[in-house]
Amino acid sequence: MKNLSVLGSTGSIGCNVLEIVAMFPERFSILALTGGTNIERLLSQIEKFKPELVSVLTKELAENLKEKLPNGTKTEVLFGDEGYICAATHTGVDTVVSSIVGAAGLLPTIAAIEKGYDIALANKETLVMAGDYVMDLAAKKNVSILPVDSEHSAIFQCLSGQRVEDFDKIHLTASGGPFRDKPQSEFANITINDALSHPTWSMGKKISIDSATLMNKGLEVIEAVHLFDVSYKDIEVLIHPQSIVHSMVSYVDGSVIAQLGVPDMKGAIAYAITYPERMPIKQPTPDFAKIANLTFEKPDTVRFPCLELAFHAAKVKETMPCVLNAANEVAVKAFLDKKISFTKISEVIRKTMDRHIIIKSPNLEDILSTDRWARKICKEFTG
Amino acid sequence: MKNLSVLGSTGSIGCNVLEIVAMFPERFSILALTGGTNIERLLSQIEKFKPELVSVLTKELAENLKEKLPNGTKTEVLFGDEGYICAATHTGVDTVVSSIVGAAGLLPTIAAIEKGYDIALANKETLVMAGDYVMDLAAKKNVSILPVDSEHSAIFQCLSGQRVEDFDKIHLTASGGPFRDKPQSEFANITINDALSHPTWSMGKKISIDSATLMNKGLEVIEAVHLFDVSYKDIEVLIHPQSIVHSMVSYVDGSVIAQLGVPDMKGAIAYAITYPERMPIKQPTPDFAKIANLTFEKPDTVRFPCLELAFHAAKVKETMPCVLNAANEVAVKAFLDKKISFTKISEVIRKTMDRHIIIKSPNLEDILSTDRWARKICKEFTG
Repeated sequence: MKNLSVLGSTGSIGCNVLEIVAMFPERFSILALTGGTNIERLLSQIEKFKPELVSVLTKELAENLKEKLPNGTKTEVLFGDEGYICAATHTGVDTVVSSIVGAAGLLPTIAAIEKGYDIALANKETLVMAGDYVMDLAAKKNVSILPVDSEHSAIFQCLSGQRVEDFDKIHLTASGGPFRDKPQSEFANITINDALSHPTWSMGKKISIDSATLMNKGLEVIEAVHLFDVSYKDIEVLIHPQSIVHSMVSYVDGSVIAQLGVPDMKGAIAYAITYPERMPIKQPTPDFAKIANLTFEKPDTVRFPCLELAFHAAKVKETMPCVLNAANEVAVKAFLDKKISFTKISEVIRKTMDRHIIIKSPNLEDILSTDRWARKICKEFTG
Repeated sequence: MKNLSVLGSTGSIGCNVLEIVAMFPERFSILALTGGTNIERLLSQIEKFKPELVSVLTKELAENLKEKLPNGTKTEVLFGDEGYICAATHTGVDTVVSSIVGAAGLLPTIAAIEKGYDIALANKETLVMAGDYVMDLAAKKNVSILPVDSEHSAIFQCLSGQRVEDFDKIHLTASGGPFRDKPQSEFANITINDALSHPTWSMGKKISIDSATLMNKGLEVIEAVHLFDVSYKDIEVLIHPQSIVHSMVSYVDGSVIAQLGVPDMKGAIAYAITYPERMPIKQPTPDFAKIANLTFEKPDTVRFPCLELAFHAAKVKETMPCVLNAANEVAVKAFLDKKISFTKISEVIRKTMDRHIIIKSPNLEDILSTDRWARKICKEFTG
């Protein structure tokens, strides 16, 4: 029996985690859940999985939730940063699924690592913002960080059973998003709905916009640098619209190992929580003869400057990836709030990065203050 | 330093083995070589690699070779079955590369396994004819059999680091050969040169014809059954004309691991003789953006009945795969000798198989007598 704490259980990844858990009730137990504001969904999750503890965003939401809980429910209800940290460090947990979206996931994830709990990591911001710090801490605490992102799960699977010395390069695939074929002249008119319509993956709003700008791929590059201890130069982004090849790793002998699957996040999620076992999660194997075509192309950094910004941040390192991430969160929110256009997203991020004076070997406080600084600056640009 | 004996060193695979050995003189030493009738090539290999022993097909060829050897050459020259067995069991060898073409490779390979030497196996007939016998013997002698065929090397690599219990299926890829798109109405006019023109792989004559009939893929299915201890039902053949995906393995969670590379046999050869290490053999990684398209389709068993014959033999087991193989060797030779047409190849194999009464749990003598019987019968059909 594996005891899980799921941070961000009402989001897209969290719900998929619970779907898998529900398939194997004899294998998993849910000890803690956290949500943001979606009280209704959390309520039904509590009824189904009977966690010992849940946490929500605010005191008001916590009280609202408590009132709605059926009589006799033993689940403790907490709120805010402290509540999230309690969920991440709850006694008896084996693996913490870190699937809070954005920078808010950082501190609970660090708390879980401090406690010595293994991490199934969906929150890429943890590594983008504080990769060196987090990986050092995980090594010190002998904590495994297992990727939940399908690309990083693929890379992890492609490295399995191989000698580190033989590694050559990571081929990180990207669907290309909804605007892969859109001419640059039409980018000015992109609407929120256009940007939310991802061709192959069903995901939350923030990550859907990040996929449309290719920033998501950029964040994944930085995440991969830390997860697999490689240079950004060892990572090549490859547009693969069918999203069947989830990523590849090449070796010194020219051999390439790839991991493939239907575009559904359950595979990677299940692998992260059951590794080294694979579970029969009722995912179909891709029907290759029916798919018939797998295509590949180079990414276009002219139309998608966010990818280049991310590579730049990966090169500069230190606090620059944290700035990239914070500015991107502000910019995406401004786009979703209709304050800026789609093409402005990369512009305001670039301007914020240009203003940043990096802090070398940043500690956690440096990272958090950089995050605050970048948000403030970027908000000046988004209005 | 790894000491090698290369059986069939003048063939296509043997020459590639020696090219790799020449790249890493500090890593390999050639103790024995065997050839058939190509004395000139063997002569230059002897001068370059200075083996302790070589063997050729006949006494005359051996004498001819001895005369041509420079004064002071210390290489012992043997001939015939006995000479081949001496090369396979020569003292001090670590790995025997079994790359004699056809049934002739069986006994030397068995002799090497008896001696306890690891095998880099290119001779698929060894497993097609006597798979159960050979794999049992290898297990008893604690001998590793490492595949040299690019497809089996791929499967081996895709299974690496995975749990046996999680295995679901092998996706064995095939280029489809030169007649993949040829309408059946034109099959009657296929010439030897047409059949020898393989679209992606550069190989010997026998295997090129086998690729044109898809019998090569059928033999590979039977080989995979034994190498990986799976049922023929767990193997799906997939036509993939670019020969970049060398094969794939899917798992119970719907995840698929694939091995890819440029279509050049050096990768698989090097891996078989250096496993678990990978050597920098100067093979380029496929340029996926340039290749752009990887396509897949189901094989057409109407135009390529040899594939179905092989699946049938794999299902019947016992001595049937041996009959399939012997009849195929006779049929291919008859086609190359212009005695039968391309479409007759599958016909005479089928007729030979139809006449066979299987021997259950055959011993080695049963296998050898079945091989002789099938050749005799098939020759009656080919004239």
